[in-house]
Amino acid sequence: MSAELDQLCVNTIRTLAMDGVQKAKSGHPGMPMGMADAAYVLWTRFLKHNPANPDWPNRDRFVLSAGHGSMLLYSLLHLIGYDLPLEELKSFRQWGSLTPGHPEYDLAHGVETTTGPLGQGFATGVGMAIAQAFLAATFNKPDVAIFDHFVYAICSDGDLMEGVSHEAASLAGHLGLGKIIYLYDDNEISIEGSTDLTFTEDVPARFRAYGWHVQEVDGHDRDQIDAAIRVAQLETERPSLIVCHTHIGYGSPNKQDTAASHGAPLGEEEVQLTKEELDWSYKRPFTVPKQALEVFRQAVDAGKQAQAEWDKTFEQYEKAYPEEAALLEALWAGDLPEGWTDALPTFTPDDGPLATRKASGAVLNAIASKLPTLIGGSADLAPSTNTLLKGYGDFQKETPAGRNLRFGVREHAMGSILNGMALYGGLLPYGATFFVFSDYMRPAVRLAALMEQPVIYVWTHDSVWIGEDGPTHQPIEHLAAVRAIPNLVVIRPADANETAAAWRVALERREGPTALVLTRQSLPIFVETKRNYADTVARGAYVLVDSSGVPSLILIATGSEVSVALGARDLLAEKGIAVRVVSMPSWELFEAQSDEYKASVLPPQVTARLAIEAGVSLGWHKYVGPEGDVMCLDHFGASAPYKVLMEEWGFTPEAVAKRALKLLE
Amino acid sequence: MSAELDQLCVNTIRTLAMDGVQKAKSGHPGMPMGMADAAYVLWTRFLKHNPANPDWPNRDRFVLSAGHGSMLLYSLLHLIGYDLPLEELKSFRQWGSLTPGHPEYDLAHGVETTTGPLGQGFATGVGMAIAQAFLAATFNKPDVAIFDHFVYAICSDGDLMEGVSHEAASLAGHLGLGKIIYLYDDNEISIEGSTDLTFTEDVPARFRAYGWHVQEVDGHDRDQIDAAIRVAQLETERPSLIVCHTHIGYGSPNKQDTAASHGAPLGEEEVQLTKEELDWSYKRPFTVPKQALEVFRQAVDAGKQAQAEWDKTFEQYEKAYPEEAALLEALWAGDLPEGWTDALPTFTPDDGPLATRKASGAVLNAIASKLPTLIGGSADLAPSTNTLLKGYGDFQKETPAGRNLRFGVREHAMGSILNGMALYGGLLPYGATFFVFSDYMRPAVRLAALMEQPVIYVWTHDSVWIGEDGPTHQPIEHLAAVRAIPNLVVIRPADANETAAAWRVALERREGPTALVLTRQSLPIFVETKRNYADTVARGAYVLVDSSGVPSLILIATGSEVSVALGARDLLAEKGIAVRVVSMPSWELFEAQSDEYKASVLPPQVTARLAIEAGVSLGWHKYVGPEGDVMCLDHFGASAPYKVLMEEWGFTPEAVAKRALKLLE
Repeated sequence: MSAELDQLCVNTIRTLAMDGVQKAKSGHPGMPMGMADAAYVLWTRFLKHNPANPDWPNRDRFVLSAGHGSMLLYSLLHLIGYDLPLEELKSFRQWGSLTPGHPEYDLAHGVETTTGPLGQGFATGVGMAIAQAFLAATFNKPDVAIFDHFVYAICSDGDLMEGVSHEAASLAGHLGLGKIIYLYDDNEISIEGSTDLTFTEDVPARFRAYGWHVQEVDGHDRDQIDAAIRVAQLETERPSLIVCHTHIGYGSPNKQDTAASHGAPLGEEEVQLTKEELDWSYKRPFTVPKQALEVFRQAVDAGKQAQAEWDKTFEQYEKAYPEEAALLEALWAGDLPEGWTDALPTFTPDDGPLATRKASGAVLNAIASKLPTLIGGSADLAPSTNTLLKGYGDFQKETPAGRNLRFGVREHAMGSILNGMALYGGLLPYGATFFVFSDYMRPAVRLAALMEQPVIYVWTHDSVWIGEDGPTHQPIEHLAAVRAIPNLVVIRPADANETAAAWRVALERREGPTALVLTRQSLPIFVETKRNYADTVARGAYVLVDSSGVPSLILIATGSEVSVALGARDLLAEKGIAVRVVSMPSWELFEAQSDEYKASVLPPQVTARLAIEAGVSLGWHKYVGPEGDVMCLDHFGASAPYKVLMEEWGFTPEAVAKRALKLLE
Repeated sequence: MSAELDQLCVNTIRTLAMDGVQKAKSGHPGMPMGMADAAYVLWTRFLKHNPANPDWPNRDRFVLSAGHGSMLLYSLLHLIGYDLPLEELKSFRQWGSLTPGHPEYDLAHGVETTTGPLGQGFATGVGMAIAQAFLAATFNKPDVAIFDHFVYAICSDGDLMEGVSHEAASLAGHLGLGKIIYLYDDNEISIEGSTDLTFTEDVPARFRAYGWHVQEVDGHDRDQIDAAIRVAQLETERPSLIVCHTHIGYGSPNKQDTAASHGAPLGEEEVQLTKEELDWSYKRPFTVPKQALEVFRQAVDAGKQAQAEWDKTFEQYEKAYPEEAALLEALWAGDLPEGWTDALPTFTPDDGPLATRKASGAVLNAIASKLPTLIGGSADLAPSTNTLLKGYGDFQKETPAGRNLRFGVREHAMGSILNGMALYGGLLPYGATFFVFSDYMRPAVRLAALMEQPVIYVWTHDSVWIGEDGPTHQPIEHLAAVRAIPNLVVIRPADANETAAAWRVALERREGPTALVLTRQSLPIFVETKRNYADTVARGAYVLVDSSGVPSLILIATGSEVSVALGARDLLAEKGIAVRVVSMPSWELFEAQSDEYKASVLPPQVTARLAIEAGVSLGWHKYVGPEGDVMCLDHFGASAPYKVLMEEWGFTPEAVAKRALKLLE
């Protein structure tokens, strides 16, 4: 390959990016222009993938963590032969196009993950590398390797400033994830100007401190880049960072090396000047020179060949290890092993009282053997969140087949890593922390919901009833805050049986994440919750205990407040009041039911409704209506034993019954 | 001082901590026991403070970032002479006590900030150091220094794993905040066990990479600790980290160096065994030996003397610089300079259309000269959030009197740093980013609300109408999510005048944080919004345009949707329908109004109500009732020009009018 042809190819990426942003009248041209050399080397000389079959399991993963440079990714995908026609690049950032402003997970067209919120891609890639290491350790055999690819990413100054990247980098270094090769676009420019304004740390030293292998190259010297990637591939014990010193907006006579090329079109005139500077002889925008395209499109045949070889390997594997192969294929299809639900425990009142976090731990351990890729862990709270899979070992550098992840006190990275694991495929990933710290991982939860990934969150210590730890650890606004996230299903079970049902819903849900919101304190187990999960938790809300006739009053509660509601019901029954108690573990699941079902649970004519939930009232008025009432907590908590708090704040059967009577007056 | 007496004092801290946790039957004894030596040295030999007057402005700040070790702080505060009687230590974690499970901001009793959520204290201390550097640069004179104290903290493994500490550390290193001296409790144990499980990075190397000065000491060798603090004090160009190698649960024969001493009482028996091991000869729990107390209580006189000296210095200052002194005293009292509101601009329709972020920038720059300690910045989005104070320079190492902070892409640290600045006193701190990234800073926002600190958030690009950047950057659930936080006032102004009024509300609010939620896109400016802010935005909701008679329908909208509602009103008026348009910039402010006022804006008899807001519907049913309707967005956004999105999703006057008509049927 001549240097001249290489240069033409690189400039094809640059001009497509410039033209795309210019046509859209918005976007980020500078980063694609600066990283075009490095990306070109990576994509044409190293990346092992199959444009004709983007979901080939052993493909190298590529994450554009600096998602604002999306035109770099779209240009590469188009040029290299993915199903992304040039027309799509011309409709960059337009309604209905495949080329949104920031890359959105769309594997069919080669986009491995949604990026844009900085730091997320960095940490998501770490999750992919964990997934690979686990599956390789679990399924590879001494004589045949099914998983042996790399995880590449391009990340930016912004990515490396975000705390989530620090957390993920520290963990990746600890785990020795040698398959990670990240290219850092060190262009010294962010939106406000020079990184001298705020980002002067010694990045290579920092990554070495995390245990990474670090190299520095001139990001426009393709030989240096080539050599560095080769070295990084040979480094199997440590993740690799290749610091690429680049010029943002490379080639733009007036905007190179300035923030002006970062987040806005160059302008028609500057685009022309830049093309001249780059010796680009084509007048028409979006020109792809034939000889450049030929270079890129070699990836199509190379990809087919690479997969064909792997397919052969897999056939070999299938013959030698038919069970493992069958399991892998089922996992890849997203199927859960048949009969796994038989392992789900049911509980009787005698098994209680039991905290739902403990019930959850029992469920997890009961099903672990049936679901061999159920893998997860906690942000340094395994003993408290009851999320340890007993007998399945830790996932560590020396023991990558372990199924317990030790995330450390890194909730945010945990969230993003879970996304990477879910995106990878074949796994059932879960992560746990205290509910109040869901705040720390919120940006990652949002992305799981947006990408429709089946991640499971185990959020324990779910209310002020954690007691003594006090307001810093007491969730108040968190139920409302997570219910607000579209496509996140939130389930707050009322007892151990609802917890088992919640796990079933979560594991069977493939179209998005599910949060299990669980108590620290013990709760009674109800006879009534033993019913089929499809008629109870899966409905979101259901009649737990009914009055014999038409109810005069409906008590609606979730989680630990259900037992309080039942207690109040007994008191009201003594006064001859017909009360229905509705357990409502999940608003989202309830909203998905038919109007008919909804009306059967909350008949419109029964307007005396009282909702009881230990959290902010936000949103409850929808269910209780203007003639109803809510017993919630619209203020922060306090440090004291939880039974004292219950008395003080009126979360007792007596107080609820009193409020209900007032409602009936 | 004899080594023996020192040892007695240190063991007094240890035994109080053990006894406190034991009596409460919950808490974290291990950390106080491990850090007792270092804390003792710091508090008795270095900390310059005045127990009799905890809010002396030039006191050293001490932050217990590892807030779970709260008994360490409470023991020290009691022993050293703060108004925290021994009885309070005995009622650790009980209802109504001054000793909650995790420290809560309570300056009267010596607690500088709320900690517990890991990493927060670390970053909050950075904010305090920024505040000090700014005030020192602004008010100190060559001949007289008003501010020259240190900012100390004790932080833990958990703190240093959290991303927010990485962000804050990187920024502190960049800014060369030499007054920072942090003691790191390197005890190699976290809740799940040894830090070898997950945290094996080279912490000293990492901090050196951030530009910190790092020392390592035996955390039980008081001479080493003493010497290290002295060296750290002499280091004025870099923040200091002193790595203290300690034994968690020091002295416990069976639990030292194990996770068992981390988060649970030692148990009666182990407490006894530990006291024996420590040669503690007192039988009764909570014993404070007289000779130990005398040592600690020397701080009382020393503190009075230190403040007396400073008072003299301040008198001197007052004479030489009466204006500055008067200003400082006013600032300290939390008073805004008289007449500052005269500088607030008003806008006429001819000034528009104008994005509310731009109006906000105009307001900020109009009032900047009147409010000399209005100081803030953005997480690398200053040009987009319009938050630069023109002509006031950057806050940098060489220019600490600058009023523009360059936070970098570090939203979370920004939030915590703002808390530290607000806690420090005298400042009006604000921080800006895109609204969608409020998720990144949420844990810090929660703490501002919990601590009732007057921090101002400028969250721009407030809806899907940011358009082309797409769903990763389009807030959907964020209004609901921030409205859920108790004591956070959220204001989404409808035009430039409401924006000016919102700034006034925010700046005058002293009892908690305020969020300004502002548009990217241009909005018309209404004649009707020029009215007195007290009758409009300060009310939370008000009648913007009314029908001549009783309205048949109320349109309720916030922010950019108000102009859509007004457009719909015109269309409906053509059909002879009497429509009231309510602008509702702030739910929280509206909820604080009298029932009478509320009913005047939303008369109960008018049940045909339509709410229009470009975000999730969560919570709106409270205002529209069961006969009303909502036009919201309960799904993620899409990448396209915003006017296309408005058409697609029906946020046009025509679509609103149509929906309203349906409601009236």
